[in-house]
Amino acid sequence: MNIDVDALVAGERRALARAITLIESGRPQDRERARALIATLPERPALRIGLSGTPGVGKSTFIEAFGLMLIEQGHRVAVLAVDPSSARSGGSILGDKTRMEQLSRAPEAFIRPSPSQSALGGVARRTREAIRLCEAAGYDIVLVETVGVGQSETMVADMTDLFLLLLAPAGGDELQGVKRGIMEVADLLLINKADGDLRTTAIRTVADYAGALRLLRKRGQDPEGWPKALPVSATEGNGLAEAWGQMQQLAQWRKDQGILDSQRRAQALGWFTQELEAGLLQRFRADPSVASKLPQLQANVTDGTLTPDAAADLALDLFLDAPNRP
Amino acid sequence: MNIDVDALVAGERRALARAITLIESGRPQDRERARALIATLPERPALRIGLSGTPGVGKSTFIEAFGLMLIEQGHRVAVLAVDPSSARSGGSILGDKTRMEQLSRAPEAFIRPSPSQSALGGVARRTREAIRLCEAAGYDIVLVETVGVGQSETMVADMTDLFLLLLAPAGGDELQGVKRGIMEVADLLLINKADGDLRTTAIRTVADYAGALRLLRKRGQDPEGWPKALPVSATEGNGLAEAWGQMQQLAQWRKDQGILDSQRRAQALGWFTQELEAGLLQRFRADPSVASKLPQLQANVTDGTLTPDAAADLALDLFLDAPNRP
Repeated sequence: MNIDVDALVAGERRALARAITLIESGRPQDRERARALIATLPERPALRIGLSGTPGVGKSTFIEAFGLMLIEQGHRVAVLAVDPSSARSGGSILGDKTRMEQLSRAPEAFIRPSPSQSALGGVARRTREAIRLCEAAGYDIVLVETVGVGQSETMVADMTDLFLLLLAPAGGDELQGVKRGIMEVADLLLINKADGDLRTTAIRTVADYAGALRLLRKRGQDPEGWPKALPVSATEGNGLAEAWGQMQQLAQWRKDQGILDSQRRAQALGWFTQELEAGLLQRFRADPSVASKLPQLQANVTDGTLTPDAAADLALDLFLDAPNRP
Repeated sequence: MNIDVDALVAGERRALARAITLIESGRPQDRERARALIATLPERPALRIGLSGTPGVGKSTFIEAFGLMLIEQGHRVAVLAVDPSSARSGGSILGDKTRMEQLSRAPEAFIRPSPSQSALGGVARRTREAIRLCEAAGYDIVLVETVGVGQSETMVADMTDLFLLLLAPAGGDELQGVKRGIMEVADLLLINKADGDLRTTAIRTVADYAGALRLLRKRGQDPEGWPKALPVSATEGNGLAEAWGQMQQLAQWRKDQGILDSQRRAQALGWFTQELEAGLLQRFRADPSVASKLPQLQANVTDGTLTPDAAADLALDLFLDAPNRP
């Protein structure tokens, strides 16, 4: 598979799609090529926006309406999906582009479904690299969509500049349903379906969440009044411009304060540590002398002839003193 | 520091105390000696009971009364404390033995305060080894006490056969205050202070928790009707014999089903994996070539000249190809 870097940098979607397929590959030689490709790409940082919301809240409709609005304003928009559950469910989000029919037809948009990978670590690396590729292809806004499953929201928050949480209008008691962890990473809560019969409920829900946000926390790196809650209607388009105005305002403030840059540096260091720990374990398990002796050590631990501590040391000695390591 | 193994196995508390001090030591030569000591000890497995409860619920009073009752029945009882917060707070539980005055004076009891160590991993290893030492010294019941801080309850549940949760009498709304994770590891919920004015509330609380337990889960490896909730009064001694009877019944059932053994084998394998991962990282960080180059790699990641992925690979190559590794 040959990647045409010039075509990619010129913004050709076909070249970008092929490059993402390359970085998604699990084959070692593809990994080498992916790394070499990324090293040659120009730096063209976009605004990276994370978005989460439970199924049924209207994520696709929101992304379609929001993306089309951004394109109309002259932006180029890439949409990536992170769905750690897709390996099991067969791809529940962005499985096909029919969910965002108009947006996917727009030449200024690029939509990429979630790959069917099971390991969260693999999904994280793939998504970080896909963001880089989209930026190099000239997309100045990258939306990373996720479902509220396990650690995926924290993972997406760790690779984006802003984080949106899309919520449904709800009574006061249901507010508890939002996981505390996600409230702590969200910059902007958007209460969707603020239209028709649900409009009044949505407005009340905004007020409820705004109150909860005030109680919940005060992040040092937020300006006064943030995080915020706003009503939107993805189907009627209400509130989208206002929401985008707020996002731009927060992004500009963080840029002026140097927070956007320091946040990205901290994210890169965090990824480095993650890659280190995962790589260390991977090389350990792939070591031939470890692989051949580990079952015996585990049996010794199980039957009590070795303590876990002593067995671990023996395994580490096997790994680190192995003379034939490649 | 010399450990008299014969005295330890004969049950002399002074020898046991010195042995625990040895395993708590962070010095490498002490670690070697601790490992050698543990390898020579006879296997005399006790019933290991984990116990958790928030401050103020009466844990010390309960342990004192429960421990004295067990001693009266002919048992020898060791009490260990796990308090990961003690490094910060200066030792909040079992800081002195005045909390359990009678029990600490009984020759059939051994009480050991929590050491001031910060790393949860270190606390876990120390406690697992201390349990082994207490068993070798002939204590047939080992109580491991913890406060409900962070991961400490799961950690204690991972090294014991039964897990008790001590709770205060409370109104229905306060039931939510118990973390879901702890409810999932507890075998027996003991509602303390079932005496005087609080007796009625305690009885009602037992019913509330019993209802919640029925809703919450059905563990495959529990007999019908477990986990249970019971009222106790540590100050008056009510319910202690009944609670102990229930514990013995569950332990016997698990023993007969082979669950107690398979649980211990699974625990040992889990510790082995933990020790492996922690040891791998420790050796990585201690490697001289890694230590000297890591700051430069981190700087490269931060300024974008290396991707986290590529930098991690370089660091791993440094570690695994280093010719002078000891």
